[in-house]
Amino acid sequence: MVSGNPGSGLQLRSLIKSSGELELSLAEVEIADPAPDEVLVRVEGSPINPSDLGLLLGAADMSTVRAGPGPIVTASVPQQYMRAMAGRVDQSMPVGNEGAGVVVAAGSEPSAQALLGRTVAGIGGAMYAQYRTLKAADVLPLPPGASPAEGASCFVNPLTALGMVATMRAEGHTALVHTAAASNLGQMLNKICLKDDVALVNIVRSPEQAKILTDIGAKHVADSTATSFMDDLVKALVETGATLAFDAIGGGRLASQILSAMEQAAVQRMTSYSRYGSTTHKQVYIYGGLDTRPTELARSYGMAWGLGGWLLTPFLMKIGPAEGQKLRQRVADELKTTFASHYTAEISLAEALQPEIIAAYNKRATGEKYLVNPNKA
Amino acid sequence: MVSGNPGSGLQLRSLIKSSGELELSLAEVEIADPAPDEVLVRVEGSPINPSDLGLLLGAADMSTVRAGPGPIVTASVPQQYMRAMAGRVDQSMPVGNEGAGVVVAAGSEPSAQALLGRTVAGIGGAMYAQYRTLKAADVLPLPPGASPAEGASCFVNPLTALGMVATMRAEGHTALVHTAAASNLGQMLNKICLKDDVALVNIVRSPEQAKILTDIGAKHVADSTATSFMDDLVKALVETGATLAFDAIGGGRLASQILSAMEQAAVQRMTSYSRYGSTTHKQVYIYGGLDTRPTELARSYGMAWGLGGWLLTPFLMKIGPAEGQKLRQRVADELKTTFASHYTAEISLAEALQPEIIAAYNKRATGEKYLVNPNKA
Repeated sequence: MVSGNPGSGLQLRSLIKSSGELELSLAEVEIADPAPDEVLVRVEGSPINPSDLGLLLGAADMSTVRAGPGPIVTASVPQQYMRAMAGRVDQSMPVGNEGAGVVVAAGSEPSAQALLGRTVAGIGGAMYAQYRTLKAADVLPLPPGASPAEGASCFVNPLTALGMVATMRAEGHTALVHTAAASNLGQMLNKICLKDDVALVNIVRSPEQAKILTDIGAKHVADSTATSFMDDLVKALVETGATLAFDAIGGGRLASQILSAMEQAAVQRMTSYSRYGSTTHKQVYIYGGLDTRPTELARSYGMAWGLGGWLLTPFLMKIGPAEGQKLRQRVADELKTTFASHYTAEISLAEALQPEIIAAYNKRATGEKYLVNPNKA
Repeated sequence: MVSGNPGSGLQLRSLIKSSGELELSLAEVEIADPAPDEVLVRVEGSPINPSDLGLLLGAADMSTVRAGPGPIVTASVPQQYMRAMAGRVDQSMPVGNEGAGVVVAAGSEPSAQALLGRTVAGIGGAMYAQYRTLKAADVLPLPPGASPAEGASCFVNPLTALGMVATMRAEGHTALVHTAAASNLGQMLNKICLKDDVALVNIVRSPEQAKILTDIGAKHVADSTATSFMDDLVKALVETGATLAFDAIGGGRLASQILSAMEQAAVQRMTSYSRYGSTTHKQVYIYGGLDTRPTELARSYGMAWGLGGWLLTPFLMKIGPAEGQKLRQRVADELKTTFASHYTAEISLAEALQPEIIAAYNKRATGEKYLVNPNKA
């Protein structure tokens, strides 16, 4: 298992050129020996999360994707989006937020040496690579028997789901709403909320997705494609009192519908009319952008409302390292239950650059998730 | 001047019937003698603020307005908006947030008696009425020589403008953006910011409005109808560092453009690329709805952003009575300078019910404001 530093390895790169072209390629990169407090991980599993797709594909129009010349793939970036890409133009970017693998070399410090041969999870980018050097203090050793695939999604989804519940408590709400709720993340959130006795209203986009959730015990599920959606949602909000939502969709009218439904539920509790609406603060955080269209707000919910972006990293910085470590430990402890992930397929680095496979993982279909194994044979 | 309680007086009423009709009328209401801690004010000036129009006209389609039968005026409320009106249906509502007048009767307590004959300003609704009973402790005695017209807008606009600057400080921002900036409120805000040395970026919708502001000393003005608008705005944001905006428009793309421009200014200060955008928190508060269309957010500004409603009353509750009293005293002290208001016309209660005058004040034209004088001869 402990094979040492191979000297070099493949790393997936994403480059947006000032000419308006996205280029994905595999670079052979040199690997330095780990510093005394570092470990070298042979990456064997790294998920393609929606947040990875943002860096991987940028604002490229993937209907223009074409393979080659050589082992690369290209696509065009529409001119109107190039301004938003300005910060990364002409820089070859490594990709892959998180992943897991085996420690094959370690620095001289005891904390690093202790990890030799262990299967660990890590975060920090550049995980779509055969090897990744990380600080020993930053990796999460997996429980005995856990595979890299089982530990590959240890950070982003589990900590995001735990962060939603923690944010709910910190901001004085008592129940949650979640959209795209049949996702891997959404299923985790259901398990957490059931375990922690937090009421959760799940919004899905099909009867099949509703069934995925009721099958794992979800109590409140509203299907946004049903004609009764707004009534179903108001009813669930009256029952749960949820005034905070986390929205992975972003575009279209869903965030506005949620705020409207929260207001209708709040108005049912009011005893006198105010033309400014209820004084109950209603909040939606957008943490994803599955629908890249603009967000449309009807503003039919008084003045006590807020909408904003929510991201894991600033949340972790806000709660500090001690609280963060507690969340990480819970993830390790419940890796095969609460935080189990399911993958549609395991692909190699070369496969990640094939147009038909890109089309498959870029569908971002709820409940489907791809795992990159950079050391897949 | 101290004429006592006349026993009854006219009061403007707004009623939305479950049949889908708005009805404005004048009701003759009985006037009780003031309680020991109350005063009776003969109202001689009450502005028509955008916030009053919301209660006065509700969701009625004012192109359907018709006079009579009798001294009333009616208009139709489109069926799709009736749900939002549910809280007020079939209740005859008095209107008029704030105003000023002369104390004509007072309760037995010394604090009330001391106000007899004084010109005072008040807030609390039902000011489009010949007489209004208020708590002595709640009225603001105007400086000697100030007329009811001069004191009529003592609360909503001045405290809102002061509240914007206070919110900026409380939330850690150092400069402001304001839209519809040539309004009465916007001009006040410019005077406050010039006096208090706070950088302010004014967004207007015409060259004429820009001139109104530069004439009173505004340093940063961007015209949203100019082709150079986004560049002008980014330049002003780079110069001022403003990361907080108060938006009176609400609908359309302006809030999103402001967030985009703030992000572009923030990215200019960044040294490395993040696909999540800058970590600088960018905030827009919508405090009005001059454009009633949906708000459209392009979400091209990373994840560190927020949008929400902002309203004076919750702000005053948050800062508490002592801080609120300081703001009120500043308004009284600077009534004829910083907080001077200008009116397009002074109208009677009967005139407020004439279709062509309703059409005029419902235009909500920037810089135009109507004053209701319920005791106009």
